[in-house]
Amino acid sequence: MSETLPSQVRIVLVEPAGALNVGSIARVMKNMGLSQLVLVNPTCDLQSDDARKMAMRAIDVLEAAQIVDSIPEALVGCHRAIATAVRSRIDSPLEHPREALPWLLEPGLNTALLFGSEDRGLSNEELKYAQRFVYIPTSDRYRSLNLAQAVAICCYELFQAPIPDATLSIPCSLDALDRAYQHLESVLLDIGYLQPHTAASRMEKFRHLFNRANLSEAELSLLRGILRQVEWATHDRTSEQTSKDSRT
Amino acid sequence: MSETLPSQVRIVLVEPAGALNVGSIARVMKNMGLSQLVLVNPTCDLQSDDARKMAMRAIDVLEAAQIVDSIPEALVGCHRAIATAVRSRIDSPLEHPREALPWLLEPGLNTALLFGSEDRGLSNEELKYAQRFVYIPTSDRYRSLNLAQAVAICCYELFQAPIPDATLSIPCSLDALDRAYQHLESVLLDIGYLQPHTAASRMEKFRHLFNRANLSEAELSLLRGILRQVEWATHDRTSEQTSKDSRT
Repeated sequence: MSETLPSQVRIVLVEPAGALNVGSIARVMKNMGLSQLVLVNPTCDLQSDDARKMAMRAIDVLEAAQIVDSIPEALVGCHRAIATAVRSRIDSPLEHPREALPWLLEPGLNTALLFGSEDRGLSNEELKYAQRFVYIPTSDRYRSLNLAQAVAICCYELFQAPIPDATLSIPCSLDALDRAYQHLESVLLDIGYLQPHTAASRMEKFRHLFNRANLSEAELSLLRGILRQVEWATHDRTSEQTSKDSRT
Repeated sequence: MSETLPSQVRIVLVEPAGALNVGSIARVMKNMGLSQLVLVNPTCDLQSDDARKMAMRAIDVLEAAQIVDSIPEALVGCHRAIATAVRSRIDSPLEHPREALPWLLEPGLNTALLFGSEDRGLSNEELKYAQRFVYIPTSDRYRSLNLAQAVAICCYELFQAPIPDATLSIPCSLDALDRAYQHLESVLLDIGYLQPHTAASRMEKFRHLFNRANLSEAELSLLRGILRQVEWATHDRTSEQTSKDSRT
């Protein structure tokens, strides 16, 4: 990982509850050349003595931590996100940190690594914001890692990782992708493909599919163009229909 | 690393001061399939709430931890030891954990990984008990890792490491090596090669040399044999001398 540029990888903690953990995480981030810490609805106090005691000389990372209300807000401007998952939760393939994490270091991108809360990890609902999933291998005797230890291992792997070559196309940002999903859902409801009571589970399947595809900005534009065309065509037909009805 | 056998690697903490750290270390050891924790003169209470809170479901590792008075006592029966070092301290080569740690997993050996205290690491005096030295790479902006995080990263690397083939010869145990050093020193003083005031620094050089050589049990026997022969020869000559003196 480059030491000359500020790292592009943000560490996102979802509902962390332990101030000691958050302090330790700030420290190991700085040890491993990272500086962007984002907390989604933390239930602990970042300015507490516990947090500051553990952060030691990484108080700057702790003080610059950003607090937000939702995962989409934590991911604004991000092009790629990887979530840490507990084996049983997810049906997408789980990858070794060493295999997946270099993907976050591709030059020119903003990226995120997501961790769930100490007692429950990331829910299926939360995992869906990521495109890839890592699992830290552990002994069968005791699988549950302390949050700060899990972050330490991932930050260490990021620091060791080779920087991949830039791909030719610019991937779309995750917030742009999220807006596209909302657009798609509204169009599919509009044309009667989706019913309100089944929309959520059907949309989940589309999210899976498109997340896997790592869409570029250009490809997302194409898809948004199709949606706008469908809207135009159906509204047009609806208004034609309405005017026809009024004529008869 | 094998999950079927109890691990042969003991984690040795020299003068740990933080109960939270020791608890976290017990937890990550169990996560990574390790169970032997040895503390040399700890200055914190292992049975405190802090330690137990962090150990979570690894209370068994914490409760089975062995407390000893010295590093040699912590290494009794060990064949190999690696110490974690701070870059500036040591003139032996520092290795990446991924490179050196598999050496501790060679079948049939008892081995140890040593960590110094939170505020000062391992001294030169303490480092000399190890044969190899690892350094966890960190950012130049902040080099000092939290003790529990350093142990977590090394335990994770041990858990990932391929198990090396058994070497043909059995390495000598570190306590046998230590006894050999004491024997050598006493013989060298006896024959006037060492002077009491320079013995320590000269012996340091021999330790360096023989630690580097990774002596086998058979080789150590050979060397001890030479020492015994020198003792026999010099005592014999001394007693001959004495009897000659008494005859004149």
